[in-house]
Amino acid sequence: MSQRVDARRLRIAMAQINATVGDFAGNLQKMLKAVNQAKALGADLVTFPELAICGYPPEDLLFKPRFIAETRRCLQKVVEASSGISIVVGFADTKEDIYNAAAIIHDGKLVGVYHKIFLPNYGVFDENRYFRAGDECPVYIIAGVGVGVNICEDIWYEAGPANIQAYSGAEVIVNISASPYYFGKRDAREKMIATRAADNVAIISYNNLVGGQDELVFDGGSLVLDEKGRLLARGKQFEEDLILADLDVEAVSQTRLQNPRWKKELVLGEEQEWQVTRATVSEAPFNTEKPPLSPMQVEMRSLPAEIYDALVLGTVDYVAKNGFKKVLIGLSGGIDSSLVAAIAVDGLGKPNVVGVTMPSRYSSPGSVSDAELLAKNLGIKLLTIPIEKVFQAYQDTLAEAFKGTKPNVAEENVQARIRGNILMALSNKFGWLVLTTGNKSEMATGYTTLYGDMAGGFAVIKDVPKTMVYELARYRNYLAEVELIPSSVIDKPPSAELRPGQKDIDTLPSYELLDPVLKAYVEEDKSVEQIIALGTDEEVVKRAARLVDDSEYKRRQAPPGIKITTRAFGRDRRLPITNRFKGW
Amino acid sequence: MSQRVDARRLRIAMAQINATVGDFAGNLQKMLKAVNQAKALGADLVTFPELAICGYPPEDLLFKPRFIAETRRCLQKVVEASSGISIVVGFADTKEDIYNAAAIIHDGKLVGVYHKIFLPNYGVFDENRYFRAGDECPVYIIAGVGVGVNICEDIWYEAGPANIQAYSGAEVIVNISASPYYFGKRDAREKMIATRAADNVAIISYNNLVGGQDELVFDGGSLVLDEKGRLLARGKQFEEDLILADLDVEAVSQTRLQNPRWKKELVLGEEQEWQVTRATVSEAPFNTEKPPLSPMQVEMRSLPAEIYDALVLGTVDYVAKNGFKKVLIGLSGGIDSSLVAAIAVDGLGKPNVVGVTMPSRYSSPGSVSDAELLAKNLGIKLLTIPIEKVFQAYQDTLAEAFKGTKPNVAEENVQARIRGNILMALSNKFGWLVLTTGNKSEMATGYTTLYGDMAGGFAVIKDVPKTMVYELARYRNYLAEVELIPSSVIDKPPSAELRPGQKDIDTLPSYELLDPVLKAYVEEDKSVEQIIALGTDEEVVKRAARLVDDSEYKRRQAPPGIKITTRAFGRDRRLPITNRFKGW
Repeated sequence: MSQRVDARRLRIAMAQINATVGDFAGNLQKMLKAVNQAKALGADLVTFPELAICGYPPEDLLFKPRFIAETRRCLQKVVEASSGISIVVGFADTKEDIYNAAAIIHDGKLVGVYHKIFLPNYGVFDENRYFRAGDECPVYIIAGVGVGVNICEDIWYEAGPANIQAYSGAEVIVNISASPYYFGKRDAREKMIATRAADNVAIISYNNLVGGQDELVFDGGSLVLDEKGRLLARGKQFEEDLILADLDVEAVSQTRLQNPRWKKELVLGEEQEWQVTRATVSEAPFNTEKPPLSPMQVEMRSLPAEIYDALVLGTVDYVAKNGFKKVLIGLSGGIDSSLVAAIAVDGLGKPNVVGVTMPSRYSSPGSVSDAELLAKNLGIKLLTIPIEKVFQAYQDTLAEAFKGTKPNVAEENVQARIRGNILMALSNKFGWLVLTTGNKSEMATGYTTLYGDMAGGFAVIKDVPKTMVYELARYRNYLAEVELIPSSVIDKPPSAELRPGQKDIDTLPSYELLDPVLKAYVEEDKSVEQIIALGTDEEVVKRAARLVDDSEYKRRQAPPGIKITTRAFGRDRRLPITNRFKGW
Repeated sequence: MSQRVDARRLRIAMAQINATVGDFAGNLQKMLKAVNQAKALGADLVTFPELAICGYPPEDLLFKPRFIAETRRCLQKVVEASSGISIVVGFADTKEDIYNAAAIIHDGKLVGVYHKIFLPNYGVFDENRYFRAGDECPVYIIAGVGVGVNICEDIWYEAGPANIQAYSGAEVIVNISASPYYFGKRDAREKMIATRAADNVAIISYNNLVGGQDELVFDGGSLVLDEKGRLLARGKQFEEDLILADLDVEAVSQTRLQNPRWKKELVLGEEQEWQVTRATVSEAPFNTEKPPLSPMQVEMRSLPAEIYDALVLGTVDYVAKNGFKKVLIGLSGGIDSSLVAAIAVDGLGKPNVVGVTMPSRYSSPGSVSDAELLAKNLGIKLLTIPIEKVFQAYQDTLAEAFKGTKPNVAEENVQARIRGNILMALSNKFGWLVLTTGNKSEMATGYTTLYGDMAGGFAVIKDVPKTMVYELARYRNYLAEVELIPSSVIDKPPSAELRPGQKDIDTLPSYELLDPVLKAYVEEDKSVEQIIALGTDEEVVKRAARLVDDSEYKRRQAPPGIKITTRAFGRDRRLPITNRFKGW
């Protein structure tokens, strides 16, 4: 009997997999591999992320009956592979409606299904569009331990399922998530989960998804925290991982016994609806593969390092999951395209990145030489395709229609669109995906040409403010220990080079002034008055707000790009184009 | 006392206005004008559509505190204008959260606020993103009549607020709506409201919004139905209107008295929370401006007529509300661009529509002559800008990069993108909005060039299947009683003319075969197997499904266009680009 108590430990394996939306065969393969690894490691329980079977977010694919049927079929395969182990895996369940669900599987049987209760319907999330909310908080007994399973958003609510489950006897809370990255979120998430663990005197294992999916990057960083909120293990960020942890459930019991408010709740299984009982208690010796870490011991990487890795993963996954091998980047000799090229090379390898420089009559000499130097530093192929002849042909062709008009943005945009056409021609001819190079400051202010520099399949740094572009370039050079991105690129004043002597600063405020204003206006919904009150020049604020408001139509036709801030352009921010309300 | 009973009539005016999102001043002006008209007509009550004060749908503008403050300020102006009349108007209410609300106003006072209970969060709707649902169904006494107010989706539920309000004493149900158009919806809507009226033995006034807003057209067609579900009045479709109706509330009482299930519910005001009492009963003589119509008497217009009007309104409103006067259309001599030009002329007038024909080496002679004939028929200016010189310059410029490759889609797309660049150059130079001309069959299959023929601000017929394009062209010619759109245009086989002798039929199945397959796959989520089972050739179905799946990335960068079907591309259909699940 005392041995039984000694054995109240649970060995858990969190499979932080990179699932792909709709790739049932591929996701299943990853899951079966992880199940086998977990068995080999003697785990009692292996967990997978939210909707791991079909990938997250599946969006309107959920309305296709065959998609749901495939999900079911795939779940059955996981059930069949569960002999001798327990599994928690996310899938889309259907009864009278569709549910965002977790299957609780044990030893060849589907023993229970949990339905997500809190459905996020803000920011990038549309879960009310698809799912009905669950209303039950069962506790399962896995290897003699009370386990409460819940899903992603559920854990963010203090009085949510984790709390109910803990008070119903769950000593371990298994949360499976698909939590999209933005910078700063990891910290907030870890603090929240630590609080939740300590408040509920429960061990929490938090199994996050990893990988890129269109605009989103899931950053992994799965966690195990003990009942005092101390970090036991953490998964890699931006990489697949299998995190093994031995949970000292006895310590939970002991702590609860010392706490008067827990006394009467401690009897396991009193109100639970399902029980998962194991045939044998795990015989594996108690140990943790990774020694317990206190939060202090964890190396918190710099912000640019984290963002850079997010951009690499987001790019690699967009390219590969959409069936491309090579990418094409227009290199202007500027910092944006240089950074995008470095990210692409880090993610895809030198042979898979092609640069093209497309000088015009207005290009500075540095435009070509800096692009050449960058390509040399990165070791990538560089094409040179001057646009002068085509530009001249446009000017001749448009001469009659434009007769009597002064050169304006029309002629500037023609050049940008010639480059867009050349990039797309190379893409169509050779099957290379075009990466665009516009940053968030440009996307916000519309300092970008629709069908010109915006032409391409994926906008890598679309959500990166220009000031952060500089930080990322410096970070990458710091890593390289050489000037991978030439200092001439970093130091030159930004310019679109679409007319003689043009500089961004002629049209826009300096990015140091502009970026905080854009953040306040775009990400924080601050009014112009509020931003001015923070001490920014009135003209700068009004100008910036006006540019943001007036560029909505451009953003609507922009390629997707990676979200790294609290509010990215895209599904995260849904504004009408037709809109007479002006923030300025 | 008996006179009091005789006077149990309510004169209602429904102001079917075209509100613009964010145009507080403009919307207020329309509302004050309607209030004054309603007073002059002796109305007891004037109603306005859902969210009429700020326009619908305001989307993420609702997150801007200044937007909400403006809504409040504007509502106050309406309250101040209400002396001697009652008003029901939609606005965004804020308490601890935001509500989709109706203000009940009487004689200078805001006497009550109703909060929408059923929030649509499917299709084009995202109301759970913004609003908290209400949970009260009050009944107001207006001019001695029990009135239940509810909002749009609320009336679609049999056991919804209308039912509760009717059983709590409401004899008149005022529903204010912003119901977006798709073909067939008007019929469904009228049948539903007639059923709701008869079931609840209540007169229902249904005040819909009218106007275009980005992808949506609100079609008006406001309704008044009596307690037997018979049509009393109907507002114009696709036009602003003020619909006056004298409601014989006594008839409701009488009918209810004869019905045992109503007996005990008849006492007015028993459980209501607010009362609106009028100082004087209306002295105006009982009459109805429009004689009551039975549904049979209403002219049901043909489907093409209805769709055509929707396209005209959607186009006019997109152009005007976004501050444009003139539009530019690339005329290929084909039926799509011809139809778009006719729609633009009907909506904006001849002087505001410019055509441009951009022949290439592959253009048929008819391409230019048909465009010329169409422009002559429509009375619009036509520019001719051949692309040969520019195309040759591209070929020379790309010769080295393309060395050793065979001509393929790359060269074809270069031509389409030259045209896109020329259209945008003219747009940028002269401030004309470019209307694109792709139809739904092309958007579905990706038979369209990104940044080429897809380049432009508004995609007029984006949701119109090719077979309907033909019907609309014939309808327009029928109206004109001449061949406004030349028969040579209607009769020629569709072709992109991007290589010698190219025809759509070389690449796509015939549109007669294709369109029903696309409808089943795109709008109805039918699987390939299900569509084949309906009797369509397997190869055609698989091919179509594959083309739809593989073109998602193009649609993501498409300009907005007018929804006319049950599921349009755009916010109505949200599929991931990165997606390994194939319907075929």
